[in-house]
Amino acid sequence: MADEPTGLWLIGARGSVATTAVSGLLALRAGLVPATGCVTERPELAGLPLPGWSDLVVGGHDVTHTPLEKRAEALAQGGVVPHHVLGAVRAGLRAVDAEIRDGYHPATADGPQADAARRLASDITAFRDRHGLARVVVVNVSSTEPPVPHVPAHDDLGALEKALADPAKRVLPPSSLAAYAALNAGCPFVDFTPSTGIALPALDALARQEGLPYAGRDGKTGETLVRTVLAPMFTARALRVRSWAGTNLLGGGDGATLEDPAHADSKLRSKARGLEALVGEPVPAPLHIDNVPDLGETKTAWDHVSFEGFLGARMSLQFTWTGLDSALAAPLVLDLARLTAAAHRAGEVGPLGALAFFFKDPLGGDEHRFAAQADELHRWAAGLGR
Amino acid sequence: MADEPTGLWLIGARGSVATTAVSGLLALRAGLVPATGCVTERPELAGLPLPGWSDLVVGGHDVTHTPLEKRAEALAQGGVVPHHVLGAVRAGLRAVDAEIRDGYHPATADGPQADAARRLASDITAFRDRHGLARVVVVNVSSTEPPVPHVPAHDDLGALEKALADPAKRVLPPSSLAAYAALNAGCPFVDFTPSTGIALPALDALARQEGLPYAGRDGKTGETLVRTVLAPMFTARALRVRSWAGTNLLGGGDGATLEDPAHADSKLRSKARGLEALVGEPVPAPLHIDNVPDLGETKTAWDHVSFEGFLGARMSLQFTWTGLDSALAAPLVLDLARLTAAAHRAGEVGPLGALAFFFKDPLGGDEHRFAAQADELHRWAAGLGR
Amino acid sequence: MADEPTGLWLIGARGSVATTAVSGLLALRAGLVPATGCVTERPELAGLPLPGWSDLVVGGHDVTHTPLEKRAEALAQGGVVPHHVLGAVRAGLRAVDAEIRDGYHPATADGPQADAARRLASDITAFRDRHGLARVVVVNVSSTEPPVPHVPAHDDLGALEKALADPAKRVLPPSSLAAYAALNAGCPFVDFTPSTGIALPALDALARQEGLPYAGRDGKTGETLVRTVLAPMFTARALRVRSWAGTNLLGGGDGATLEDPAHADSKLRSKARGLEALVGEPVPAPLHIDNVPDLGETKTAWDHVSFEGFLGARMSLQFTWTGLDSALAAPLVLDLARLTAAAHRAGEVGPLGALAFFFKDPLGGDEHRFAAQADELHRWAAGLGR
Amino acid sequence: MADEPTGLWLIGARGSVATTAVSGLLALRAGLVPATGCVTERPELAGLPLPGWSDLVVGGHDVTHTPLEKRAEALAQGGVVPHHVLGAVRAGLRAVDAEIRDGYHPATADGPQADAARRLASDITAFRDRHGLARVVVVNVSSTEPPVPHVPAHDDLGALEKALADPAKRVLPPSSLAAYAALNAGCPFVDFTPSTGIALPALDALARQEGLPYAGRDGKTGETLVRTVLAPMFTARALRVRSWAGTNLLGGGDGATLEDPAHADSKLRSKARGLEALVGEPVPAPLHIDNVPDLGETKTAWDHVSFEGFLGARMSLQFTWTGLDSALAAPLVLDLARLTAAAHRAGEVGPLGALAFFFKDPLGGDEHRFAAQADELHRWAAGLGR
Repeated sequence: MADEPTGLWLIGARGSVATTAVSGLLALRAGLVPATGCVTERPELAGLPLPGWSDLVVGGHDVTHTPLEKRAEALAQGGVVPHHVLGAVRAGLRAVDAEIRDGYHPATADGPQADAARRLASDITAFRDRHGLARVVVVNVSSTEPPVPHVPAHDDLGALEKALADPAKRVLPPSSLAAYAALNAGCPFVDFTPSTGIALPALDALARQEGLPYAGRDGKTGETLVRTVLAPMFTARALRVRSWAGTNLLGGGDGATLEDPAHADSKLRSKARGLEALVGEPVPAPLHIDNVPDLGETKTAWDHVSFEGFLGARMSLQFTWTGLDSALAAPLVLDLARLTAAAHRAGEVGPLGALAFFFKDPLGGDEHRFAAQADELHRWAAGLGR
Repeated sequence: MADEPTGLWLIGARGSVATTAVSGLLALRAGLVPATGCVTERPELAGLPLPGWSDLVVGGHDVTHTPLEKRAEALAQGGVVPHHVLGAVRAGLRAVDAEIRDGYHPATADGPQADAARRLASDITAFRDRHGLARVVVVNVSSTEPPVPHVPAHDDLGALEKALADPAKRVLPPSSLAAYAALNAGCPFVDFTPSTGIALPALDALARQEGLPYAGRDGKTGETLVRTVLAPMFTARALRVRSWAGTNLLGGGDGATLEDPAHADSKLRSKARGLEALVGEPVPAPLHIDNVPDLGETKTAWDHVSFEGFLGARMSLQFTWTGLDSALAAPLVLDLARLTAAAHRAGEVGPLGALAFFFKDPLGGDEHRFAAQADELHRWAAGLGR
Repeated sequence: MADEPTGLWLIGARGSVATTAVSGLLALRAGLVPATGCVTERPELAGLPLPGWSDLVVGGHDVTHTPLEKRAEALAQGGVVPHHVLGAVRAGLRAVDAEIRDGYHPATADGPQADAARRLASDITAFRDRHGLARVVVVNVSSTEPPVPHVPAHDDLGALEKALADPAKRVLPPSSLAAYAALNAGCPFVDFTPSTGIALPALDALARQEGLPYAGRDGKTGETLVRTVLAPMFTARALRVRSWAGTNLLGGGDGATLEDPAHADSKLRSKARGLEALVGEPVPAPLHIDNVPDLGETKTAWDHVSFEGFLGARMSLQFTWTGLDSALAAPLVLDLARLTAAAHRAGEVGPLGALAFFFKDPLGGDEHRFAAQADELHRWAAGLGR
Repeated sequence: MADEPTGLWLIGARGSVATTAVSGLLALRAGLVPATGCVTERPELAGLPLPGWSDLVVGGHDVTHTPLEKRAEALAQGGVVPHHVLGAVRAGLRAVDAEIRDGYHPATADGPQADAARRLASDITAFRDRHGLARVVVVNVSSTEPPVPHVPAHDDLGALEKALADPAKRVLPPSSLAAYAALNAGCPFVDFTPSTGIALPALDALARQEGLPYAGRDGKTGETLVRTVLAPMFTARALRVRSWAGTNLLGGGDGATLEDPAHADSKLRSKARGLEALVGEPVPAPLHIDNVPDLGETKTAWDHVSFEGFLGARMSLQFTWTGLDSALAAPLVLDLARLTAAAHRAGEVGPLGALAFFFKDPLGGDEHRFAAQADELHRWAAGLGR
């Protein structure tokens, strides 16, 4: 498979994460940078039948039209893409930009959602055919959506398809419509955001019907990554966590989106679900996301953990994480594309629980402890390699 | 074994860690406090044939004569032992105090070290006989010693015994003499400090000759605990650690001891050894221990980790740990006594590498990653239970 | 005046701040503790004609009935009142408790508010007469109230008195009714909370009519204290603050009160008003107050300041403040009682702007810079001493 | 004076601070950047007869030969000089570079130090004549030297001149030789480093004899700046500081220089002197400077302050400062050049104590409190304006 051409189709292909992933892929292919941050290049995953950097062909959907090259220039200003890399990948960025098609925008779409889904799917299949790709992995890296109210059609594929055909209905949010389209195009789907995406019973049924694997959701890149590492420490040492407070300061587009409480809610729910699982009991865990535009691409998180030890001793741990979110997310997007491609090739179907390592809110698994997730990933990947 | 009376012989039996461990053991036995901080009470270790809280009988050596009860009062002032616990355990503390014998003090000892060792061993065997104990685990929790220059007698048991018999020589530091005496008394030995203790080839040979297990060294209770949890996160995510700086502020007796650069050196070496192993390459890692008397029993550590991600992005993680060192160490001392007793009963001999989970500088193993150490501990303990 | 008996009448006399202030006053009088935290004992304020510790007689209003002694026991558990102090001041606490009268509770009060105010005022005058006090300073240290909607009667004393006489109306929140009663009893009033209290034009008019000084509001004890110290540094150095984010974690009763967004709003508005004044331009300044019950009396605040320097350089300062709020507030309450008594004796009328040093949201002054406030306090106090 | 051409002669003219100052001056002159970080542009100092940005002509001494333009490129990589500024100031940098002369290097100099001093002085006077400058301010921004052992000739100008004439002696360190040369050239001298520089009685005598003002020493740009702001807060609030620990992580050339304990010692002494003055009593104040090369131009400092309040309550404040040292220092160098020029013009002689605002270890004054220093600066500057 190291020489099977493989597609990576990005939903939100002109966003910060996508732009960084594409710039980085081009730089890796040109040998300009080491593969720092790429999990699939770790010795533990060596020797797997994964597509190489040169085997990956990128396209995608987006609702904006700012060219990828312009977006990369902004990221260079923000310190995410080095100036010398930008200079070397401009042509490559323009080539990828030519593979980006208009995404689905609920405000401007008319007609039944089924029509839109058909159009989205045909964009992907045309891309696959055009480049003679063995397969295309669709990865959602678009902006976080607000949580979606549950409707019965989400639970049943037949009911869902009927609702999609109804021009008066908008039964699926854009992220889920993208997942539906991907599955209909015969493509595995990865949800890197906390949006609903593929996490609906009807879409799970469709994936199984089509024999497709999928993975998600909400890439674990910063504060939550650290939490899933630290929380098991307290547990293993029989120390009792009494509270775990967190504040996230972020600028960039993400900050503006998450300033809206409705959008932030998806993110906060996704983060909270894991903590109780990790700590083993509910604890006060106030959590905030603040939009601080001047921080640009930098995300700063402060966590304060209060815990109790022997004889009731009260102690605390606090940490401050200062990360460039896009630089943390982008290599994981490439990793997920490679691993999901390999899973598809190996015939895996349904949620890939072994990829929980990458996600805040893992589908198909409820392991939140980071080290256990790493072990599971390595075991699973070793199986792929057979 | 849950009803086999088992001895816990503490070297440094009137120190803060020992006093907290004894106060806590008495409180646990009386059902006054939950077993927070006791790893052997975790579900993962349930069902093992360990001595119960009521099976443990405590004695020890110390070079100071302040009664245990007075020491516990000071710890109550410092917030380590709750006032209501102190009130309930005074009689128990006096009873343990009656089992404490004079330790070995190089400044006042005369005659060959072999004589001193015989006296120390006979204190322990008398204790065992007096209480009809199935076995006695000796645990060193005394003050950190400066590193000891290597001499050939450390490598060969015969040469060592000859040197010990020479009244003109002081071939072993007190911690190692204590280990030598423990082994001669037929007792397993645990090194909770960074002092030399049992970590000499000649003493390893003696342990094997006597068919005794041992464990060490340097209890992992604070900054290093967090480091062994965080460092594998960077590695697993292919993030490159570029520097890892640390500062420790501590008061109490430990602060005063470690203010002396010679003593601090043992501790700093012990801490440094692990970091390179964890990160996979040498990185600048300046580390300081400062004596700040007003902090009393509280230890505050600040770490600053600079790391590199995708496309060379520079990011950082910093944490501040505020812990009560004695409260963190004491339950581990009880855990180690129980587990080492079980290992002795099961016939294990030599260094117990599976106890690396408890130590900064593990003997008999070179696994420093915390989660892997926990897995190893659980696997090993499950074997004991058979 | 050092020997004029002076009353301190506390609104919320059984709260944490009041209990700490009273316990501390009793301990100071007995010479048990140094006057750490008492600004009026600084050399800069030496030689002023202030009431001495033994001249202060304490009484107050409260809506709860837990005896002061019980409250002090809880604070001793929480580490605010030392055990040896508690033992020595029990009788004194009982004596003060006997001087506490039922406060005004809107839920249970019936009849016009004017009647309640008369009753409150007569409690204070009876206290003054009973103890032969030269004057009584009334200090509000009760729980924070939600912000109060503005009504025209707040702006005009005549209209206010008419509304107070109307049994169908509740024109004043409890803190303002307490201020109205205090002024009617001829007493200066100090607002240590962010509640409305005396900050209404009609009450200012009443204070001037009665020839009384007053001060407020919202004691500056932690995060804001540090902010008013740090912000002028950036300004004086021509560094441009770009954002200033803050998170406050607090337990205790205050945490529970402020968990309610309506109550927190008063506090947050009070905190925000100052920052813009200090920084000289509006900056993003997200601020949160979280109730974290396990923290008890400890309040932890984290602030992250992003600032810009020469050539657009982006830099940051973050701080974590860990304080015992009652221990910080209590000595300031004693200071304010002494200073306001002296101001009253000196014939000052209206808001005491020179006391801005003590407050987040100073009345009668708009100086927020801490050092400038200190200078102003010292100058003003020197004038009092003439 | 706004149109008097004024020289700025930098000792260490190719170092990071100098390069940033020159790049910034050129950018300010071209109107490319705002004067953020320049204290002399604050409203409090408006209207003073200071040289304008276009009146300043720059030259200097250095012992290295890397062109200023190359140094600026490195600083652009490190994020200190923006790329668009670099592009615009290249010609200006080359022009300044042409005004840089070989500095004094003790390892390669032979002959008596007096000869070297004559050569250094004539470089400065030639610069003054060449550009028709009203005056030249000499500012030392070269690398920190180790502390210099005291010799009697340091205390007496006659003895000093005799020693300087002796070819076998090296009585002055380079920084002091530079000060001696500056004074002999009739130029005011500013010591921006902790090196000995002008801080010798014999050089003070020379300055007074020549009727020249001088200022120093050790620019206050980061951790110490924050300390001189925070410490007065504790004092003014009668809170007792119990310990104040600090750690500084820095890369760049400064990190490498200060890694050498002998050089760090100058810096640490300079920092320590102030703290005791600020806190009013000696407190444990461990302080470290660590070289962490990967941090580049970024300097990170962590401080932990433990303090005591009412009733003995123990509390803490910790802060992390992340700054670009050169960006903080450079505008102060320009400020000091302007203010010292104005002082010279106004006929001031000897140490300018009113410039303590800028220094860790102020000469001619012992005020360490930042706000009081700012007040003093503003008062003094107002006097200059008359």
